[in-house]
Amino acid sequence: MKSKLFTPGPTKVPGAVLSAVGKQVLHHRSPEFSEKVRHVQDELGRLLQTHNDTLLFTCSGTGMMEAAVANLLSRGDKVICVNNGVFGERWVDICKEYGVEAIDVVVEWGKSIAPAELSTVAAAHPDAKAVFVIHSETSTGALNDIKALAAALKDHQAAFVVDATSSVGVHEIRMDEWGIDVVIAGTQKALMTPPGLSFVALNGKAWGLVSNSDLPAFYFDFTTTWKRLQRKGQTPFTTAVSLVYGLEVALAMMEKEGWDNVYDRHARMGEATRAAVKALGFSVLPEHSVNGVTVIMCPDGVDANKIVRVMDDEFGVRVAGGQTHLSGRVFRIGHMGGIRERDLAMVIGALERALASIGYPSTPGVGLTALQQVLLER
Amino acid sequence: MKSKLFTPGPTKVPGAVLSAVGKQVLHHRSPEFSEKVRHVQDELGRLLQTHNDTLLFTCSGTGMMEAAVANLLSRGDKVICVNNGVFGERWVDICKEYGVEAIDVVVEWGKSIAPAELSTVAAAHPDAKAVFVIHSETSTGALNDIKALAAALKDHQAAFVVDATSSVGVHEIRMDEWGIDVVIAGTQKALMTPPGLSFVALNGKAWGLVSNSDLPAFYFDFTTTWKRLQRKGQTPFTTAVSLVYGLEVALAMMEKEGWDNVYDRHARMGEATRAAVKALGFSVLPEHSVNGVTVIMCPDGVDANKIVRVMDDEFGVRVAGGQTHLSGRVFRIGHMGGIRERDLAMVIGALERALASIGYPSTPGVGLTALQQVLLER
Repeated sequence: MKSKLFTPGPTKVPGAVLSAVGKQVLHHRSPEFSEKVRHVQDELGRLLQTHNDTLLFTCSGTGMMEAAVANLLSRGDKVICVNNGVFGERWVDICKEYGVEAIDVVVEWGKSIAPAELSTVAAAHPDAKAVFVIHSETSTGALNDIKALAAALKDHQAAFVVDATSSVGVHEIRMDEWGIDVVIAGTQKALMTPPGLSFVALNGKAWGLVSNSDLPAFYFDFTTTWKRLQRKGQTPFTTAVSLVYGLEVALAMMEKEGWDNVYDRHARMGEATRAAVKALGFSVLPEHSVNGVTVIMCPDGVDANKIVRVMDDEFGVRVAGGQTHLSGRVFRIGHMGGIRERDLAMVIGALERALASIGYPSTPGVGLTALQQVLLER
Repeated sequence: MKSKLFTPGPTKVPGAVLSAVGKQVLHHRSPEFSEKVRHVQDELGRLLQTHNDTLLFTCSGTGMMEAAVANLLSRGDKVICVNNGVFGERWVDICKEYGVEAIDVVVEWGKSIAPAELSTVAAAHPDAKAVFVIHSETSTGALNDIKALAAALKDHQAAFVVDATSSVGVHEIRMDEWGIDVVIAGTQKALMTPPGLSFVALNGKAWGLVSNSDLPAFYFDFTTTWKRLQRKGQTPFTTAVSLVYGLEVALAMMEKEGWDNVYDRHARMGEATRAAVKALGFSVLPEHSVNGVTVIMCPDGVDANKIVRVMDDEFGVRVAGGQTHLSGRVFRIGHMGGIRERDLAMVIGALERALASIGYPSTPGVGLTALQQVLLER
């Protein structure tokens, strides 16, 4: 039995997207493909509610994080990194690699950064060139309130750079209205496309930083990429054409569902999943949870990795374990993109059965009942 | 009518590979996927005839070129770049971006570098840390003899770095026996996989350079990637799982055909295509042609881009034009990977009809006859 995927990315990909991905490749320099590139990039701009151009790259979300650092900054620059999980910490690591001084704002894992705290840090470092934050921290499930954070940074010179890899398509992002200078994201999570494509959008302030940057970037060079897009609707280097086909179909599906409905669906799925696991006696790690993944704390003596293993091996449902020091302590249920409300009964059902199998004291049906109540009420 | 692809990459992808690419995604941290990664990496090692590990990355061939520079070198290092086309020139551009001093060995486009010339340049720069060369220069169709070049560099300290993006699977590469220190390649050409995956293999000497490098590399970090592969059969960041499925199937198809047969097929297809276009009154640009692409010079007054356009628009066959200063002067027929001998009649037939359509003086059937003669005789 092949396991059903309830991981926080890659996520289950809809059949229509897979069909598109499996189509014969177009040449990346053909007019037909340029049309697809322009179309996808326009759609991504609408998704981010921005007038800025979006640029596509063949890489994972981490490649795009590195690209943001390498394109925006210069050696010796100072930046502020909000570090409330694995991905927040990655900003710090990338900056170190490039000789950029990172003010590492460590926030307890599971917590979100308070706008007032960021404001204080920013005031203490008026020379910081950028503030890096993760919108939806996939390792802890914590949501950073980027609207409020952008407002808190309004009077600061730093460019506000948001990684939206696991939030885009789950939580609304109004890039222009909220004053976010750079958004980067991957398309393998709520955007329902197999992994391998990422994108970035930059406003005028961010382009100003790009023009002064002295860090090396070739494959990830934003300027070259933007010029080629403008001139020919192409990427400068061969892109993953199959994944662009898939992304085009995925975006059309979400457009058809309606973006507000997509966000509402994720809000319902998030709330219902949290209610279900709480009813089973677990707690949810983050204070302010994202809606695309639920990160569940295990009581002492319960091995989260065992739950993950039993769900996968015995019940054919694959969720994710915890990363780094959270390994064994938490497990993570992804519910974004191609996951529908009906699928949640499958994952909570498998969880209940796995708990029974490992002898965890809970009453089968309790989680599912709580799940249904939320789905019915909302 | 959708055009048939005879471009020098991306190339036509076989149906079985497309089916694999369109399968539901596995989680990139699952044991099933690790098995695929290990399997593909072992196969790639066999293909390069090396005992060194191969490392997979989600990017184009250019990303892998940049990765080689960023991982092997330090700021201020001197290297030798063999520049006999667009891709050779790219080595120089990437080195500049990283503050690496590139000795730019410009060879007339269409020519290959002579081993004795490289030997002389290397002797003049005993402090060079690396020599970068393109095995099959896709822009001009010239083949660099990497076996002879490696022998010419035998007593030099420099690491010999070969980009085999459009040669791997077309021309045999014996990495260990020939003494090549680094091979990089993409999988979207003769390896018959949709674009988006690249790989690298390094020997001990090259790893020595990696350990001393001070250039920034995070997404493309070879050491992190190698460690994660060793420990878990994983890539450090989310990889393009769908393309890994495809590559696995493509490699199995070629393994089944037999690598020697694959190389022979490409040799036959190269020779037959060259004979056909010569019979039609054209010349072939390179002195020593690669077997994966034929680069055809147009006589004065004949616009190569018009031939490309007419073949595509009127006869449904897509070949490629020339790059940079070769634009309008050459056109390029790709015949690698999924292209079979039977397909060549289609592309030469379309070429003959396009020539008739633009009023070029040639007798229809002459090219096809020359094609058949080579295919029958060999």
